[in-house]
Amino acid sequence: MSKKQPIELPEMMGLVSALVYLLCIITFLPFAFKHDIVAATSGGGNKDIVIEAQVVETGRFLHRFPLEKLASYGFAYGTLATVIILGIIDDFFDIRWRHKFFIPAFASLPILGLYFVDFGVTHVVVPIPLRPYLGELVDLGSLYYLYMSAISIFCPNSINILAGINGIEVAQSIVIALLILLNDAFYLVPSTPTLHPATDSHLFSVYLLLPFLGVSFALLKHNWFPAKVFVGDTYCYFAGMVFAVVGIMGHFSKTLILLFIPQVFNFIYSAPQLFHIVPCPRHRLPRFNARTGLLEPSQATFTPEKPLNKLVGEVLKVLHTLKLLRVETDEKGTVVSTTNLTILNLWLVWRGPKREDRLAIEILAMQTFVGLLGLAVRHRLALVVFSQDNL
Amino acid sequence: MSKKQPIELPEMMGLVSALVYLLCIITFLPFAFKHDIVAATSGGGNKDIVIEAQVVETGRFLHRFPLEKLASYGFAYGTLATVIILGIIDDFFDIRWRHKFFIPAFASLPILGLYFVDFGVTHVVVPIPLRPYLGELVDLGSLYYLYMSAISIFCPNSINILAGINGIEVAQSIVIALLILLNDAFYLVPSTPTLHPATDSHLFSVYLLLPFLGVSFALLKHNWFPAKVFVGDTYCYFAGMVFAVVGIMGHFSKTLILLFIPQVFNFIYSAPQLFHIVPCPRHRLPRFNARTGLLEPSQATFTPEKPLNKLVGEVLKVLHTLKLLRVETDEKGTVVSTTNLTILNLWLVWRGPKREDRLAIEILAMQTFVGLLGLAVRHRLALVVFSQDNL
Repeated sequence: MSKKQPIELPEMMGLVSALVYLLCIITFLPFAFKHDIVAATSGGGNKDIVIEAQVVETGRFLHRFPLEKLASYGFAYGTLATVIILGIIDDFFDIRWRHKFFIPAFASLPILGLYFVDFGVTHVVVPIPLRPYLGELVDLGSLYYLYMSAISIFCPNSINILAGINGIEVAQSIVIALLILLNDAFYLVPSTPTLHPATDSHLFSVYLLLPFLGVSFALLKHNWFPAKVFVGDTYCYFAGMVFAVVGIMGHFSKTLILLFIPQVFNFIYSAPQLFHIVPCPRHRLPRFNARTGLLEPSQATFTPEKPLNKLVGEVLKVLHTLKLLRVETDEKGTVVSTTNLTILNLWLVWRGPKREDRLAIEILAMQTFVGLLGLAVRHRLALVVFSQDNL
Repeated sequence: MSKKQPIELPEMMGLVSALVYLLCIITFLPFAFKHDIVAATSGGGNKDIVIEAQVVETGRFLHRFPLEKLASYGFAYGTLATVIILGIIDDFFDIRWRHKFFIPAFASLPILGLYFVDFGVTHVVVPIPLRPYLGELVDLGSLYYLYMSAISIFCPNSINILAGINGIEVAQSIVIALLILLNDAFYLVPSTPTLHPATDSHLFSVYLLLPFLGVSFALLKHNWFPAKVFVGDTYCYFAGMVFAVVGIMGHFSKTLILLFIPQVFNFIYSAPQLFHIVPCPRHRLPRFNARTGLLEPSQATFTPEKPLNKLVGEVLKVLHTLKLLRVETDEKGTVVSTTNLTILNLWLVWRGPKREDRLAIEILAMQTFVGLLGLAVRHRLALVVFSQDNL
């Protein structure tokens, strides 16, 4: 929409990336799991005699990636394929926002099911300040599954919401993937002479994220400003679900949230419009000023048909004073418009009109900085609330 | 198309069935795999202490369905989800027939990958007459993977080709599923006091087929003559892939082919038109006679733009004499038209015009009879070419 000449561009190229990703994941399967050579079988896939097994090199160690992880790999594949199905349906049919929101929950069922059958661990370690009341471990039971569902609903939707300028969906996913890989590296290139117990989980994460980076960079090449293709909801759901799968299967979902801080902020900041406390126009992407060629904050204007609650208007005025949005008032002091509540518009309020690619780069730089800060907090400050960092 | 009043009907209802199926498969997961209660974990999904395990009742035995099958379950799910993605793409975009044909091969990669990693058995037992030349076992190596791909290409496409009248895609799939379940029952309700080694494979097959039957019967209710919904290519690919997965994972792909005899016949019979040796119209479904309300064989007519090779014409005349099709000739004896080469048209040539549902019922009765015969051959005559039946 932010172009001088409106031209038709192919939507849904994210589907192509997602399919290539699935292909990569399967092609890599024999490399991830060393081939146990089977000498005899009594039928039905029962392995009677296994001749040899190989090992893979991990960091400085030779390590055998366990065949038990095969099920995780299969269910992760199943989850990602399911979210692609639902993404396609969403791209083709016009689904209401409140229904869309729960699409990823359906797709996450395979990994939740696997978790239930294979691990079933719903205890969490309690932070030290709360231990006098709760004990060292607390069993969240079914709440833990609700928490995992919430993660898998949040990751895809938050990427889908932080959108609107060329390349931002793909580039923010690339930044998150790189940050997770950095976190994985802490575990896989260890400083201690023994192998970390979570090595497998982080190897698994690397296996899923490297091909994701590959297809995402390829997509970004065509989706970066000026975009020649669009990615569709399919890509946003797919990318978010890759992170959710990696975080849930790798048992580092709390760390994952630290890498989603800009998305969390954007979601909370958007909430008044998403839940229609503040009237919400059809599109909230920054407004393109054809004269300057720059993006400016877009606005939601309040008309008698779309009125703004008086009290909400006063809150908006306070937020305006705090420079958290920009409102316009008429001579009576009534709020007649506000900038739309997205992090992109807020950035433009703070830093003035920008060219589309410049805005994307600044948002990505901010995201990288916040993510690195998050990882530092995770590994340095964890000692304050837990008795030990698990690194 | 075979209706008096043309009305618009929802296509692609098969997609809804397929999604419900995926949901069932995941919901059943905790029931298939008994829940090992894990007391402690060192993180990363490593199970340190498993307290207890339960057993399930199978036939007359108490049997523990092995957790090793979990990976098979996950990859089966992944394969079916992938074929649904490709089915949707096929339904939405117009894909050329020669490209469509290989769609299921992509979808079958997850199970082939799993087979490669986890079983890797590519030896087959040689029939007795050939043993002097080949030995008792022969290693097919990569040919075996090619064979499995062929199975997974054939099953979905053959169901997609045997189509054209209300309910036939769904009903033929139901018949095949019931026949496979009958074959499974031979293994699961055993006559010997010990458990059959292939019990797990056949339990796996039952687990995948029962929910398939459920969604298919529901779909048939709306798709049976006069159809209120259509199933789309998505359903055909999905149904065929369920059978391919069950046959490949359960190591009974040869038995599976015996249950596809009408589809194999239809494919071979169609081949001259599919490969354009005989000119092929856009649609080959039986022709609806609005006056009688009955279906008649549809015809391919040969025009100067769509000429018929002379030699092929002579072959068609021979087939006409053998009652394998019906041709019309002009006064010079040149073939000007032939009935389209599908089993549905052939049945109408043999048995005269029929109402749509009557034709479907007769085809299904024939399919059931041929399938039961196939199973009888499998379990009685196997002794002739192999030294023992594996039952």
